[in-house]
Amino acid sequence: MHIKITGSGSYIPTEVILNEDFKNHHFFNSGGTQINNSNTVIIDKFKKITGIEERRYASKELNTSDIAFLAAEKAIKDADIDKETLDYIIVAHNFGDVDKNSSQADTVPSLAARVKHLLKIKNPYCVAYDVLFGCPGWIEGVIQAVSFIKSGMARKCLVIGAETLSRVIDKYDRDSMIYSDGSGATVIEVTDKPGGILSSVSASHTLEEANFLFFGDTYNNTMNDPTKYIKMHGRKIYEFALTHVPLAMKKCIDNTKIDISEVDKILIHQANEKMDEAIIKRFYELYEKEVPDNIMPMSIQKLGNSSVATIPTLYDMILKDKIKDQSIHHGDLLLFASVGAGMNINAFLYQF
Amino acid sequence: MHIKITGSGSYIPTEVILNEDFKNHHFFNSGGTQINNSNTVIIDKFKKITGIEERRYASKELNTSDIAFLAAEKAIKDADIDKETLDYIIVAHNFGDVDKNSSQADTVPSLAARVKHLLKIKNPYCVAYDVLFGCPGWIEGVIQAVSFIKSGMARKCLVIGAETLSRVIDKYDRDSMIYSDGSGATVIEVTDKPGGILSSVSASHTLEEANFLFFGDTYNNTMNDPTKYIKMHGRKIYEFALTHVPLAMKKCIDNTKIDISEVDKILIHQANEKMDEAIIKRFYELYEKEVPDNIMPMSIQKLGNSSVATIPTLYDMILKDKIKDQSIHHGDLLLFASVGAGMNINAFLYQF
Repeated sequence: MHIKITGSGSYIPTEVILNEDFKNHHFFNSGGTQINNSNTVIIDKFKKITGIEERRYASKELNTSDIAFLAAEKAIKDADIDKETLDYIIVAHNFGDVDKNSSQADTVPSLAARVKHLLKIKNPYCVAYDVLFGCPGWIEGVIQAVSFIKSGMARKCLVIGAETLSRVIDKYDRDSMIYSDGSGATVIEVTDKPGGILSSVSASHTLEEANFLFFGDTYNNTMNDPTKYIKMHGRKIYEFALTHVPLAMKKCIDNTKIDISEVDKILIHQANEKMDEAIIKRFYELYEKEVPDNIMPMSIQKLGNSSVATIPTLYDMILKDKIKDQSIHHGDLLLFASVGAGMNINAFLYQF
Repeated sequence: MHIKITGSGSYIPTEVILNEDFKNHHFFNSGGTQINNSNTVIIDKFKKITGIEERRYASKELNTSDIAFLAAEKAIKDADIDKETLDYIIVAHNFGDVDKNSSQADTVPSLAARVKHLLKIKNPYCVAYDVLFGCPGWIEGVIQAVSFIKSGMARKCLVIGAETLSRVIDKYDRDSMIYSDGSGATVIEVTDKPGGILSSVSASHTLEEANFLFFGDTYNNTMNDPTKYIKMHGRKIYEFALTHVPLAMKKCIDNTKIDISEVDKILIHQANEKMDEAIIKRFYELYEKEVPDNIMPMSIQKLGNSSVATIPTLYDMILKDKIKDQSIHHGDLLLFASVGAGMNINAFLYQF
């Protein structure tokens, strides 16, 4: 049995937010004191570390479930399937639908139920649920779809990653410049064609790391603002990711008979360019090898970090020739990997 | 291969809220006009329909993930397993952690990550995620655990249903009297013992029904309150449930060679006593039979509707001799069934 991604789609929100759009922000550090550097210096340093030049925000009339639907429609068309034959709709997100002018998350009904409603699918045995697993949620959804197919519970699953992080950011926090909105969708099917998902690994590091990414107070404590925002201990996450993500990626490869030199592309969660480069370097060091040229396609420069959406969006954009100098060919071996809140890590090895 | 529930635990919150505690509430209908009847009449009618005499609220220092942990600890002890051998922690909920004095849901990190952290589990390959599937979330988590076991991805899973609905209710809505807080947990394991999960069915009815249960405005529109609360179209849900739940339950039985007369107990989501009785009546009518005496244990009278928590809590309470005149014996056939936001329906047939 082979399990393959037979279609993909993504929705890139239309509001382009440049780094210079943050130039009049007042940035504070986590201790609550205002940062002395000029915003020009802060933004330059931010760009050097993260690689982010601009990011996208969903327009105010669209919610996370709406952009999930827009990507889903494209993936179903791309897979050329009858939508009524879907056995599962799995939506990975972390914050639910958050209206532009609200801080309240709306998760009832589930975003998957909303997507299925918008897709006008009649078949009640297409089961729609949401999975919360931090940024690695889309990969985890794929792993769950693989399980449903292997256990005979499904043949076709729609797996979506969608998030509007622009609605949960603290504008007084420099990290707010990282986050963006987006959605990517994929159809996962059992097929007779060769290749597909060859191996996967999934882990939750919660003993010390559970709160490395969390929902917390604004850094500007003069505001008396009770609202919680997405917050992270960036240094701790960086060190954690550098230690654990390469090992998880290696475990995924080592579960197969594939040699590292056969891997053609690594599609990694677009969290931070420097961090991603350091992870890949460490990963190849585990095999005493140099990082091959052009192995890691990146979209973070123009799209920022849209959490669960970065990887399916990146995959779809490569296939649609929207990432410069990057392409995927039949038979190519792709390693997908992610890390995020939980702290969760996962990966799967895929033959296109 | 047999897959069984090898341990269970529940946490019953300590704050007892009586029907008479609502006697000074001002109730409005969905159109925004105040209801003319006296609260004594409203409460009497409410009790006749729902069967609810009292309900439980979690004390203010406890959040949904905390009560999920408290039930989980008991289930692990009851199953007599080493917690480090768990492959999955699946937490079903719908509203995340909502602080007593906030309307904001907190879902980062996931509640499953928080539970795993509180359990002090070190094993990173114990994967912790949340599933959102309306009230049927705990059953859906069990069905997912079964898939992971069948596909070879897991041997032991902890599946929890936990919710604090008291924190998302509109006090101007009579339906606020229905909702309560609670959590129930179960360990699902592969075993050589006979019986276990024999069949399951799961469905999402979203075409017309997606918003039968939703997050909406207070009925008291003089308040200018932007907060959203749990809301339902009760009449539509009742009619939907009466049509579709019995059919799903029958489909679950018909997937096996079990005869309806062999079923010993039906553990149904504690949504509303009259609705549950009507569902069971219709279910037996599909077989042209009368409802057997004492087949449907109920806890709603004292515990209200705690969403995902009602069924695992009920199951645990029967086993711990806390439901009058109800018991479960080796070899008994139990049909679990639920219905809720989505609108989702699911069921599984289980031999104890």
